[in-house]
Formats: sequence, C-alpha cells, structure tokens
Amino acid sequence: MEGMTGTLVLLRHGESEWNAKNLFTGWVDVDLNAKGETEARRGGELLKEHGLLPDVVHTSVLRRAIRTSEIALHTADRHWIPVKRHWRLNERHYGALQGKDKKQTLEAYGEEQFMLWRRSYDVPPPPIEDGDEYSQIADPRYADLPPELKPRSECLKDVLLRALPYWYDAVVPDLRAGKTVLVAAHGNSLRAIVKHLDQISDEAIAKLNIPTGIPLRYDLDDTLRPVTAGGAYLDPETAKEAAAAVANQGR
Amino acid sequence: MEGMTGTLVLLRHGESEWNAKNLFTGWVDVDLNAKGETEARRGGELLKEHGLLPDVVHTSVLRRAIRTSEIALHTADRHWIPVKRHWRLNERHYGALQGKDKKQTLEAYGEEQFMLWRRSYDVPPPPIEDGDEYSQIADPRYADLPPELKPRSECLKDVLLRALPYWYDAVVPDLRAGKTVLVAAHGNSLRAIVKHLDQISDEAIAKLNIPTGIPLRYDLDDTLRPVTAGGAYLDPETAKEAAAAVANQGR
Repeated sequence: MEGMTGTLVLLRHGESEWNAKNLFTGWVDVDLNAKGETEARRGGELLKEHGLLPDVVHTSVLRRAIRTSEIALHTADRHWIPVKRHWRLNERHYGALQGKDKKQTLEAYGEEQFMLWRRSYDVPPPPIEDGDEYSQIADPRYADLPPELKPRSECLKDVLLRALPYWYDAVVPDLRAGKTVLVAAHGNSLRAIVKHLDQISDEAIAKLNIPTGIPLRYDLDDTLRPVTAGGAYLDPETAKEAAAAVANQGR
Repeated sequence: MEGMTGTLVLLRHGESEWNAKNLFTGWVDVDLNAKGETEARRGGELLKEHGLLPDVVHTSVLRRAIRTSEIALHTADRHWIPVKRHWRLNERHYGALQGKDKKQTLEAYGEEQFMLWRRSYDVPPPPIEDGDEYSQIADPRYADLPPELKPRSECLKDVLLRALPYWYDAVVPDLRAGKTVLVAAHGNSLRAIVKHLDQISDEAIAKLNIPTGIPLRYDLDDTLRPVTAGGAYLDPETAKEAAAAVANQGR
C-alpha cells in the first residue's frame, strides 16, 4: 500500500516466577512460570490465526522475553526467522527495589512514593548497590558495556532514552525493508516504544498498561507513525481485561 | 595462547519424533521428542560444567536444531547470546526417501543400495518430486532462494559444498574474533564440517558418526585446523556408546 512501511508487532512476555510472587523484577533474569508459557503459546496462536507472521524478531537479553519469543514463534511455525537481541530492549532497571515485594514496598513507603516509583515518568527508584544480591554488576552479558551504560536504576524516561537508539538503528531498518517485525520485550520497554509511536504525553503514559502475551499490531506510515493511534490488539477483549488487572498490581 | 583462535563447539540435535520412528527426515521440520529435550538439557549441563560458554550460536533453520540450541543455552545460562541461523547448516536433504521408514527401505532396496544412500560420499538418493507431501517447495523459509539452490536430494558431498561457504563466511569470522562458537546442527551437516576440519578422506567419513546431544569441542590453530584431530567430546564415554548405536540405525 502507498505510504505504508512494514508491520510492527509488540509482545509483552507472559507471567514470570516473580510476577506471580508480586516482586519487583527489573533486570533480574527470572524465568516464565507455567502460566507465562501458556500465555506465550496463546500469543503464537494469535499470530498464526491472524496470518501475522513475523519475518524477524527483536528481543531483550532477559530470559522471560527470550522464552516468550521462542515459544510464540515455535507455535506460529516461525522459529526459523532471524533473531536479534539487545539490552536496550530490557525491562526498566528497578534499582534497589529489585527483588522487593510490591505490597511490602507499598506499605513501607506509602501510596504516594510507591506510585511515584512505579508510574512517574522521570523519578527513578533508589540506585542499586554493587553488593546487592540482585545487582547485575557481574553479569557476563553486560561485561563489555562501559560503566556509564550500566544502569543502577531507571525511570521510564531513562528507558525511552536508551531504547530509542535501538528502535531507530535496528528496528526501523527492518520496518523500512517492509518486514513484519516482532519485538518481544517488557512492560516498560514496550510502554516506552508506544509512548514514542503514539506521542503520548509524560503524564498520560502513566495510565497506559500493556497486557502480557497478546500481540499488539501497529501499521506504520512512511514517517514511522501509527496509521491508527494505539495500534490493535489481536485479542482486544482479553487485552482490555488484562490491562485493568495490571493497573491494580501491588494492591 | 599463541597460534590459537576461538573455540568451536559442535552439538548435534537430540532425538526427534522421526528418529524415534526410524524415518528418514532430511529437511522435514519435525520436533524433538521428550528424550531429545532431555539430551539437549544434558548438552547444556555439560557446557556449564566444563565452563565452555558460547559467545555466539549458529543453527540451521530446522526446528530440532533450533530447539536443541535454545534448551542447551537456557540450561547453560547463555540464552542471551547472539543467534545466527542458516539453511546451509540444515541436515542433508534426503530426496524421495524423506518420510520413508529406514527398515522398510533397507528391505525394499537391499543392503547395498541402502548403505550407498546412507553412507556413500557422492551418491544422492532419488530426487523428491514437488508434489511429494514431504517436499519443501512451498516452505516460506526457502521462498527467497533461487530454484537452483533448493535441493531435491543431497549426498554428503553436496552438503559439504553448500555448508562450506557458511563455515568460511559466518563461522570463521566469529572464531577469528576469539569467540567460543556453538554450532547446533545435524548429523550430516556436522559430519561435513568435521570432514573438512580433520581432512577425512571420502572413504573414511562413511564410518564417522556423531552422537546426539554431546558437545564436541575443537580448539583450532591459526590456520583453522584442529589442534587435536577429532576434537574432544565433553562426555567421551557416552559419546563412544552413542556413536556405535547410530551406526546400527535401520537394522
């Protein structure tokens, strides 16, 4: 179609072992649980049912996004497509909150501080210490990064700033080539991409939740902006219910 | 070390649904069975136990090799490394024998013809017809290949000739960069690579079997030849028993 470029498909990983335990996860590399695996399979079935077949997949370097992409692509018979991974698609680094219980954190710090850390655009949680058991300081996958690139805590603005170079330099060329591009990532790295695409304000993004395991399709025009604002979930009813549930986490 | 380049690790996929049924598989995209998944996990455990941690993985575009690599790398905590896939690492195309029972084929055509198809260096099986249910003519993963690159049947010599360009152009640069390179592939594409590395004669390669799921390590000198001929299996005892079992397939 004239004025059309490739098709973008965003997929948030299914439930992880720590989602289920209601812990802040961030860059801690936890696995999917059985429900998360089922969600990933359902994501792959939706891709297949809609004939929305990725030509290439981009993932973070975190296990829960990688396994979600693997399960979904095997289910959709697209396991053989090229794979690209980058830490710039990682979940928001949750700083000193990584490994902490969400409900306990809410009780200890109060509603206002809790929501500031969870949903403010530009207030990061306290930085993680190198000696913290949930620090990634010794993680071999980040060993080649200069120290100033290794986050100790991130707000959503930080995520947007570090994800955008990957969006422009790695994802956009695949879209420009007319490909159907799957990005399998995390609640906050996907919110950052959606904020950019839909030009959502710093205030309004706080209320945007992306449900797990339901592919979100964006058709983009030749300026790489959505033809339809907000894109389209492949299973809109379930997406609506799930987004509401995400908003209530920690309660 | 002086005169050393990167480390090569070869991993043959674990048992597939069709290995267990004793059918010729070739380019038919069957999945691992439960035993094959266990073998892949064991492969990953061996990598981890030996501290032989891949920096990059190359796979074929067939599900059984891809899943073997995914399971092994998740087990070894190396799921996040870069992934490269190529049809040049695929199993030998078994032509019109794809989907046929090995024992029935042996009985129908006799020992001599059977062994010629299975183990001769340069006699391919009869070519597959486009209309054959096990043809890959309509498979989207090969849609961009010109017809002369889509095999209708292959002997081991054909596999070597089509795998070598990938070896030289994609695997060697990773080795030259000093990386530990995992190649997760198939009985015959790995035999082709081993034939090249160890300069095995056209006659002697017939007797070389590579067992499933046991990483085979090659340290290479600066001419990309093995420091020790034949490399070293991470579990040499099991490898010896398994290689003997492979040699008896179809009996």
